[in-house]
Amino acid sequence: MSTILDPWGHFAIEKYEKLFKQFGIQPIDTVLDKLPIKHHFFTRRIVFGHRDFDKWLDALNRGEKVAVLTGFMPSGHTHLGHLMVFEELKYLQSLGVHVKIVVADAEAYAVRKLGRRKVIEYGLEYIRHAIAWGLDPTKTDFYFQTNNTTPYYRLIQMFSRKITKAEFEAIYGEASPGKIVAALTQASDILHMQLKAYGGYKHILVPVGADQDPHLRLTRDLADRFAQELGLRRPASFYHKFIRGLDGNKMSSSKSDFAILLLDKPEVIKKKVMMALTGGRPTAEEQRLLGGEPEKCTIYELYTYFLLRNDEELKKQYERCRRGEILCGRCKKNALKLLLELIKVHQEKYRELLESQIVEKHVNIPDF
Amino acid sequence: MSTILDPWGHFAIEKYEKLFKQFGIQPIDTVLDKLPIKHHFFTRRIVFGHRDFDKWLDALNRGEKVAVLTGFMPSGHTHLGHLMVFEELKYLQSLGVHVKIVVADAEAYAVRKLGRRKVIEYGLEYIRHAIAWGLDPTKTDFYFQTNNTTPYYRLIQMFSRKITKAEFEAIYGEASPGKIVAALTQASDILHMQLKAYGGYKHILVPVGADQDPHLRLTRDLADRFAQELGLRRPASFYHKFIRGLDGNKMSSSKSDFAILLLDKPEVIKKKVMMALTGGRPTAEEQRLLGGEPEKCTIYELYTYFLLRNDEELKKQYERCRRGEILCGRCKKNALKLLLELIKVHQEKYRELLESQIVEKHVNIPDF
Repeated sequence: MSTILDPWGHFAIEKYEKLFKQFGIQPIDTVLDKLPIKHHFFTRRIVFGHRDFDKWLDALNRGEKVAVLTGFMPSGHTHLGHLMVFEELKYLQSLGVHVKIVVADAEAYAVRKLGRRKVIEYGLEYIRHAIAWGLDPTKTDFYFQTNNTTPYYRLIQMFSRKITKAEFEAIYGEASPGKIVAALTQASDILHMQLKAYGGYKHILVPVGADQDPHLRLTRDLADRFAQELGLRRPASFYHKFIRGLDGNKMSSSKSDFAILLLDKPEVIKKKVMMALTGGRPTAEEQRLLGGEPEKCTIYELYTYFLLRNDEELKKQYERCRRGEILCGRCKKNALKLLLELIKVHQEKYRELLESQIVEKHVNIPDF
Repeated sequence: MSTILDPWGHFAIEKYEKLFKQFGIQPIDTVLDKLPIKHHFFTRRIVFGHRDFDKWLDALNRGEKVAVLTGFMPSGHTHLGHLMVFEELKYLQSLGVHVKIVVADAEAYAVRKLGRRKVIEYGLEYIRHAIAWGLDPTKTDFYFQTNNTTPYYRLIQMFSRKITKAEFEAIYGEASPGKIVAALTQASDILHMQLKAYGGYKHILVPVGADQDPHLRLTRDLADRFAQELGLRRPASFYHKFIRGLDGNKMSSSKSDFAILLLDKPEVIKKKVMMALTGGRPTAEEQRLLGGEPEKCTIYELYTYFLLRNDEELKKQYERCRRGEILCGRCKKNALKLLLELIKVHQEKYRELLESQIVEKHVNIPDF
């Protein structure tokens, strides 16, 4: 049976390697040389695959007009998983690239069936976190899907002509009105910056989680079908692995016991970290003897993704675990300390943004 | 088997009476008393049925805020059939009602698969004809579906949540992405004036041809489902019979030999009228003996719809035909004379509008 990736589902993709073969996603290794700065997300293969990212980097390196578009579904509180995209965007912004972020509020409302007010609240929370994490608000465009301008919406209407129900079902598994409109809206999100009215950026990069690839496949097909009529080009994309929740499954705000929410209080974070799934052995004795299994450990994942940016330090941590020189309790405490520091700084900036109402002034908020 | 009305098909609905029973359309007779002015379209049952038109008239008669929304698909040249809607709008405008007209260019592009430029051209032609027929351009709003503003589009996105694929298939027979987006766009056309941003008109009337009722049924369901969340109310509607083409089938610009196009030259109109299907008998002798059959006659239909507004004159015409006192040749010549006068005046106004470019100045034209 073929694997149908479901961007609306909650699950962890176990074997990312399958994606290379089945859907034609390229391994990230092939572009490492072209990266102007080698961020650890790439060198550690947290960003594991891509489509045409090499071409996009060539355009960047040639000094052509390039842009980044990504988004998020405002269906819950912002958590560590979202930080991955923020980190990627911050990195791309540091390269001088124009960054645009869409709040997929139409999708959260129509597909996830949340209330409009809730969706808008979550959206604003997310935007504040993005800025608190270091995105430059004066250089980042944010918009809500329900609050863009024409001709952005014209693309949705036009796209509907050149995709059949059967093609839609092949990509998404089903073709309900809600999902059709949501998917065509996403395609418009990804492609609209190519229109003159939105800057005419012909080289678009979409950094997302691996589950979002179906949207990219749809969008690339649509770009091909509108190449002549509207001059659209295929977007490039790269894909990161999901950060796992502390239970070892995909992190999700709907399972908040196992997710680090960015506004969690220190004592809550402490509790969650202390309960986290590790790669430890049943007894301390065994662990000293056999060593731990960092590959299985959600705490080691935190080190890899966010807590230890220095490769040497990470390697040391890995080896000490492997050799049984450090037990899980001490390791967790160390991770907790680093995480709390990170979160503290972040939450302070978040609170400043909340008080200054900068986001409310900067972003066009839907009135219903 | 149940009758599925197909607004995208080309056909004549034979038995309008079936619609009363099957879909709950009310006979127009029930509202005649409430009409402030009794236009012959109503008294002659050319407008044969309605939904909640009585309630809308009550609101009008109470002096409440009421509005009219109708539209057309810009998929061909404007013909006599379109004049029916113009005539209805002119009548409603004479009652002091706010009139808004949508050019369904998104639908013509996505469902009928015409080119964007062609669709925009046909749209402008249609708008010119509407004004030439007597709609007051300073009191009529025109817009293209691909060129409206937010939050009009937000409705499309929100509507997609509360309609299933099965419901869609039950109404339209199929649920392709093109038709889903087109139908939700139509629902937004009909309902968006109820939003504050578009005037907050809670009493909307939609005058259309009988084939458009599926859109009304969808839209009424959506209004119910968004009554609480958005304060939407069901639109009222009334339905006219199609004017038949000169071959006796539904008039359509795609069968232009049998349609009177509003820009046809007099000699072309003459040729078409002279070839028209009548209710005449095989020989002049038989006709003098048995009389003609005006019920079958497309020329008599022209008299009824447009050429003879005076009921006494129409009755006289009917009786002379019935008694075999007038043969088809002479009758056609008489109709042609009246039709050419009508068209001449109309075309003069149309040309003025073309030269003055008033429409181009008045209407926001999509740039692609």
